[in-house]
Amino acid sequence: MELNAHFKQTLTKLHDAVNRQLQAALVKKEPVSLYEPMRYTLFAGGKRLRPILLLLTTQAVGGNYRDALNAAVAVELLHNFTLIHDDVMDQDDTRRGQPTVHKKWDVDVAILSGDGLVALSYEYLLKTRYPAIDQLGQLFSRALLEVCEGQALDKDFESKTNVTPAEYFKMIQKKTAALLALCCELGAHIGGADAETIASLREFGLNLGMAFQIQDDLLDIISEEKQLGKTWGSDIKRKKKTLLLIQAKKLAGAANMAQIDAILNKESISTADVTRMKKIFEDTGAVEYSRKLLARHFRRARDCFKPISSESGKALLTNLLETVVIRTN
Amino acid sequence: MELNAHFKQTLTKLHDAVNRQLQAALVKKEPVSLYEPMRYTLFAGGKRLRPILLLLTTQAVGGNYRDALNAAVAVELLHNFTLIHDDVMDQDDTRRGQPTVHKKWDVDVAILSGDGLVALSYEYLLKTRYPAIDQLGQLFSRALLEVCEGQALDKDFESKTNVTPAEYFKMIQKKTAALLALCCELGAHIGGADAETIASLREFGLNLGMAFQIQDDLLDIISEEKQLGKTWGSDIKRKKKTLLLIQAKKLAGAANMAQIDAILNKESISTADVTRMKKIFEDTGAVEYSRKLLARHFRRARDCFKPISSESGKALLTNLLETVVIRTN
Repeated sequence: MELNAHFKQTLTKLHDAVNRQLQAALVKKEPVSLYEPMRYTLFAGGKRLRPILLLLTTQAVGGNYRDALNAAVAVELLHNFTLIHDDVMDQDDTRRGQPTVHKKWDVDVAILSGDGLVALSYEYLLKTRYPAIDQLGQLFSRALLEVCEGQALDKDFESKTNVTPAEYFKMIQKKTAALLALCCELGAHIGGADAETIASLREFGLNLGMAFQIQDDLLDIISEEKQLGKTWGSDIKRKKKTLLLIQAKKLAGAANMAQIDAILNKESISTADVTRMKKIFEDTGAVEYSRKLLARHFRRARDCFKPISSESGKALLTNLLETVVIRTN
Repeated sequence: MELNAHFKQTLTKLHDAVNRQLQAALVKKEPVSLYEPMRYTLFAGGKRLRPILLLLTTQAVGGNYRDALNAAVAVELLHNFTLIHDDVMDQDDTRRGQPTVHKKWDVDVAILSGDGLVALSYEYLLKTRYPAIDQLGQLFSRALLEVCEGQALDKDFESKTNVTPAEYFKMIQKKTAALLALCCELGAHIGGADAETIASLREFGLNLGMAFQIQDDLLDIISEEKQLGKTWGSDIKRKKKTLLLIQAKKLAGAANMAQIDAILNKESISTADVTRMKKIFEDTGAVEYSRKLLARHFRRARDCFKPISSESGKALLTNLLETVVIRTN
């Protein structure tokens, strides 16, 4: 209980610190068509998971989180760039309950304001005082390229009938986990950790990221619509190749397989279909499998804490990991 | 004549060196949907003006061009990123005689492969061995942001009836000249120039860039279609707010103004309209004005050479400047 209060306080403190820096990063107003959509996206109420993860990592290895604030801002700017461009590619019309940039403005504005966020993100990353700053820049660039590769793989899945679990894991590792691994890596570097600790914390971030995405796939059918903030079963309705679907197809007998195909062959998938698909996911054991995998990544992530000596740092990172795994939206 | 042969030899040498590095930068093949459009754009026969400018600048201040090759590759990658994204926004269907990325593939592929090029460009920039590498990264990021601002201003012009020459200059300074100024700045830094020389060469690049864009506007109506490699008068047909149009509107009497408005109000502008518009640009003095301005930027650019002691370096940069101003495509 006390720990929880301390965690909440820390979250609030870091959240506010990040937001202040982000406000300062976006004082420029002109051209309005470039900067307004950036602000619109950045201040729509994001949880700031990535910058907070970065700052907690810096603290956990004995550093001062203030030294990592510019890098924290950089990863949040980069994350928001991916949101804007991905929403165009995924044709998502709303995010956090408001129209996406390409809906509120247009695709051109979305492309351009996304590009601008990348420029800003590097600007902030390179403000970090760190002896081998080029190394941090390389990590950042590699992660950005991986995110692009992951998104390309995800797009490729749309026209692929059979996606294997291995292909799926490779995709989410790049699309989602690479950026969370980057946060931990940057945070550990800036906090002054040794090479072994940095590698271990990168591994922590990767597992946290995998858990995050698997939980995302699960939430689509398990969470209440009100809590989720988006349509229940929207992945199913959009025929997304989630882990649940991939695994259900792998495990399904003839009857379930026929039902899956029948639903996926429909022009438009109804809420009744979603309910039916959810039952198939449960009956085939796909939900069970995903839950187990989630738990495994959770454990693996926790195992990566070994080199960290700070008990409070470890506790805070564990708390963050828990919020990712038990979150409801 | 001898100098010219030397210039041509140098161009070929640098062009080949840049191409070899670019080939090496793009060995990765998977996912095909990400890397194939990058290669397609990069190896469509670009002139490599920007990397060559960077390398010549390094040599002009007494450096070895090989030390600047990674940065040269970086600016070419960044330039190609702007081509891919700009073609989407400007709805250009062909470039260098072949379909643009969003035409050959689709808009999603264009967004993503452009994003990937930005990541690669930073990766190469940060490979440069330079004591204050963070500074080079800041210059790079500032230029990228300026290019985005310039493109945003250019897009804004589409819905603006009256664009002033001052607004136009601000736009091309950001959209076109900022990247050429960056090339000179990076080249001078890497070549080991002092602060005064760097500032002067940045100014050279800015003027070269302004001249480049004004020449681009002029070529649209002055060049032969065969030489230009694109439709004659395509700016007019697309009602682009070029310097010629802005200045013609500023200088036109009532009769010419009525003609301009009549042409611009047409749903579709014919080749006969282009011929008529070209005559108005000439009669109002807009062509004359643009030519004078071009010559002024040419002279200003040449004046920036003062701090350079290397006569051969100065000669090569002058040759490059001349090719930009007297080019026919």
